[in-house]
Amino acid sequence: MNPRDPNYVMIFDTTLRDGEQAPGCSMALPEKLRVARALAELGVDVIEAGFPVASRGDWEAVNGIAREIEGPVIAGLARCNAEDIERAARALEPAARKRLHVFLATSAIHRKFKLNMAKDEILKSAVEAVRLARTFADDVEFSPEDASRTELEFLKEVVTAVVEAGATTVNIPDTVGYTVPQEFSEVFRYLRTTVPGIDRVTLSVHCHDDLGMAVANSLSAVQAGARQVECTINGIGERAGNCSLEEIVMALRTREAYFGLKTGIHSTRLYPTSRLVSSITGMPIPRNKSIVGENAFAHESGIHQHGMLKHHSTYEIMRPQDVGLARTHLVLGKHSGRHAFRERVEELGFELDEIELNRVFDEFKALADRKKELFDGDIEALVLRSEGESSGPWSLLALDTVSGLSAPANATVRLARKGKDPVEKQAHGDGPVDAAFKAIEAATGINVSLRKFELRSVSEGEDAQGEAVVYVEYNERTYRGSSVSTNIVESAVRAFLEVINRIELSRQTGVRQPRERRSKATAAAKAAI
Amino acid sequence: MNPRDPNYVMIFDTTLRDGEQAPGCSMALPEKLRVARALAELGVDVIEAGFPVASRGDWEAVNGIAREIEGPVIAGLARCNAEDIERAARALEPAARKRLHVFLATSAIHRKFKLNMAKDEILKSAVEAVRLARTFADDVEFSPEDASRTELEFLKEVVTAVVEAGATTVNIPDTVGYTVPQEFSEVFRYLRTTVPGIDRVTLSVHCHDDLGMAVANSLSAVQAGARQVECTINGIGERAGNCSLEEIVMALRTREAYFGLKTGIHSTRLYPTSRLVSSITGMPIPRNKSIVGENAFAHESGIHQHGMLKHHSTYEIMRPQDVGLARTHLVLGKHSGRHAFRERVEELGFELDEIELNRVFDEFKALADRKKELFDGDIEALVLRSEGESSGPWSLLALDTVSGLSAPANATVRLARKGKDPVEKQAHGDGPVDAAFKAIEAATGINVSLRKFELRSVSEGEDAQGEAVVYVEYNERTYRGSSVSTNIVESAVRAFLEVINRIELSRQTGVRQPRERRSKATAAAKAAI
Repeated sequence: MNPRDPNYVMIFDTTLRDGEQAPGCSMALPEKLRVARALAELGVDVIEAGFPVASRGDWEAVNGIAREIEGPVIAGLARCNAEDIERAARALEPAARKRLHVFLATSAIHRKFKLNMAKDEILKSAVEAVRLARTFADDVEFSPEDASRTELEFLKEVVTAVVEAGATTVNIPDTVGYTVPQEFSEVFRYLRTTVPGIDRVTLSVHCHDDLGMAVANSLSAVQAGARQVECTINGIGERAGNCSLEEIVMALRTREAYFGLKTGIHSTRLYPTSRLVSSITGMPIPRNKSIVGENAFAHESGIHQHGMLKHHSTYEIMRPQDVGLARTHLVLGKHSGRHAFRERVEELGFELDEIELNRVFDEFKALADRKKELFDGDIEALVLRSEGESSGPWSLLALDTVSGLSAPANATVRLARKGKDPVEKQAHGDGPVDAAFKAIEAATGINVSLRKFELRSVSEGEDAQGEAVVYVEYNERTYRGSSVSTNIVESAVRAFLEVINRIELSRQTGVRQPRERRSKATAAAKAAI
Repeated sequence: MNPRDPNYVMIFDTTLRDGEQAPGCSMALPEKLRVARALAELGVDVIEAGFPVASRGDWEAVNGIAREIEGPVIAGLARCNAEDIERAARALEPAARKRLHVFLATSAIHRKFKLNMAKDEILKSAVEAVRLARTFADDVEFSPEDASRTELEFLKEVVTAVVEAGATTVNIPDTVGYTVPQEFSEVFRYLRTTVPGIDRVTLSVHCHDDLGMAVANSLSAVQAGARQVECTINGIGERAGNCSLEEIVMALRTREAYFGLKTGIHSTRLYPTSRLVSSITGMPIPRNKSIVGENAFAHESGIHQHGMLKHHSTYEIMRPQDVGLARTHLVLGKHSGRHAFRERVEELGFELDEIELNRVFDEFKALADRKKELFDGDIEALVLRSEGESSGPWSLLALDTVSGLSAPANATVRLARKGKDPVEKQAHGDGPVDAAFKAIEAATGINVSLRKFELRSVSEGEDAQGEAVVYVEYNERTYRGSSVSTNIVESAVRAFLEVINRIELSRQTGVRQPRERRSKATAAAKAAI
């Protein structure tokens, strides 16, 4: 599967595995499928779909993606034991092209404090795992966790052993984000010159951003011979996150004359994919984020620099259209037709089937009745908005709030519940949103702790839509809900109701629901690589 | 002023100049002084306080910082012309230690499209400017703008000429964020081996993050002999931003054994300084930001990993306390005394004088009456909160909102105006906030375009405080306002009123007010380095 071209760098996307492990970034199965589809369209070579043994949800996600997504290789993660490998293999069965990715920590600190294993035990375990994995798949990747802090000599022994055992890709992770470019490239040069048969396998790199150097470290590995980069959309991931896909891809592309390397990524799909992942995870894209941030391109910053920018390359090394940023100030309104709407949706990088387009167009017309002008941000919000409260038993029938400076705010909510009579409750609170949340808690009998609440406008104008994101804690789990509306109180309340519905589903089925944080038991298994 | 130790790397902070130039990051004079004080406490070697010729506000900021801030060298930026240099020199006059920083673009693309100057004209202009600057200050820095895209041979000529003319620091900027570590270190090696007298000056590096490599490029320059790094708190700056101060400092510190270098930064002040800059600029710190992000330390992420983390260094290369992250779940409440409060404020890294402490303690008591439990986020918000609406003619007397699903929301506001009768107006809108904004517009007669609205909880619980940030456009300028309250509608309205007050002040004085974006004329001068 490694393209024959020696100058081709494979992009291994782990947004759905390492990215999804970040606090606040967990996704439900339909959301994961949506991201996986977008990644396939983006042109990634490998999708790491999850860690099947971590939870039933993870197994189902890997299995669902293996079944539905065509194009990229689908990978599943496993520790070096038979149960992990067999469960991952079963989850991956439907995939046209599959990869088993096994890992084991090799650094002294992990050997001593995490694994309590000696060097020879590590070697034996890694070799057995790779051999077992090869009985399920021809494509097997091995990662020595915390490789950047592993003694070079021992790292060489491990890599030599797993290559001999049949690993087809060897990934060198900087698990804790500790290395620097020059030092890391020396590790790759050392392995390439000392490990027998290393030229027959693909060398891969996996970096974390704890010291802000994930992209540079990945590039330094590529310069030293790595031909696969593991990365995530928007750089989401544990702690400070992973190497950002859009940054590494655009660095290779912008400096192609320097590196002489290429990837299979369709760069014009970077921006829409970035927006999709941000919308689904609820992790906003920082304004000054490289490549996809609001300020990344000077003339998008709102400063009128026409006089100065006689030539765009004076201050820009990329053009916004190269990364799919096709924002205009073209405004749609209630008289805009279906054709114009579809065209704009496509220009923004979304590909909707007829059914989805119909749904979104209906919502567009409804919104256009309330809002004079619809901007790109509005259209994105319509396309990206989650199904929200519709997936659970409760729905909002009425919401009335009264708020002032001198007295507590007051909210009355009326909720419908599937198969039962509607419930109406009234509550006081610090503001209309606080009061409404309390009324919903009284109506549903579910009392939660609010962890975080965020709201931001998604377009312009005083009638701009507001996207609300709510995080609550319930029974030691964290749930997230989001909603978009031109009325920010309504938006907050619908986001809160989505959370309540998720909790209800979780209570009814007893199964871990999407958007929850994993339990303690799973946390032990999740901090891999 | 260059410490004699050859292994000492000077930290040149440009948060107040290059950082402040970023869209949405402009600061008022009192805010700049607050940041400058925090930078001095942090231990930076140089504070670049502004670009005096850019506006009257910039000149006053540089002058005020030069007058008030002790410790670091205070630098002011100037183009290569007499007016720029003389105005910068006058602004810097009160400083105990001052630096004039002159710059001129040297790359082919800038010579042709921006300056329309030949190579010999560039050389002549740079030399004259450095000579003139030396008549005002012993400490003169020269920056060849867009150095990383300048022909090496010509770069050498320029650097040779300015060193001969008396520059004491030569800064090599990667103005467009284009270079990569290996390539950039070769530029520094080349200059160090070819420029006569280069050892007598300090070589400096200034990187932008367009390809996500600002920190790594800066480090590569340091490895090749640079002994000054130009950077900003939280990496704020033009486009994708500048090299992040906290990342470069913690990279050098964490990998001290590898680099053998040190800085004068008190790392425990990194987190409080980061929070201060975020609060003042309204630029949130991304959750997965290296060093100072909410997720940067695993055990701060809310995941219970006690079982796994037998030894903190298994997954952490820094300790949160190293960067001043002293957050606890210690909760204060209405019965907490002054002593406990002061202690917590100090643990959070704030140093308040008696007057400030009294003000904040009073606000703490008032808040504790409304909110059961006060978390670290609440205390930070109290300390960091801006003066807000109090600085202008309008203040909020009453605010009543009514909102439902079926009909438009309704808001009534009653505003006091200095020296005049109060005004009361009522308006309809899409939600209570929209309606209240419209009522304020009607009451004040100032009609603005809302560009952006953001709100987020600053602590936990349903009675958490919400911080609202509002950006509006008025007369082709952008204004920002922010406010914190437990009632999110009130918070939004106070932020909006802060904006209205700023506009009023701007109309009355005819002078550019803080927190506005610069005008077109100034934009031409601002995109330096």
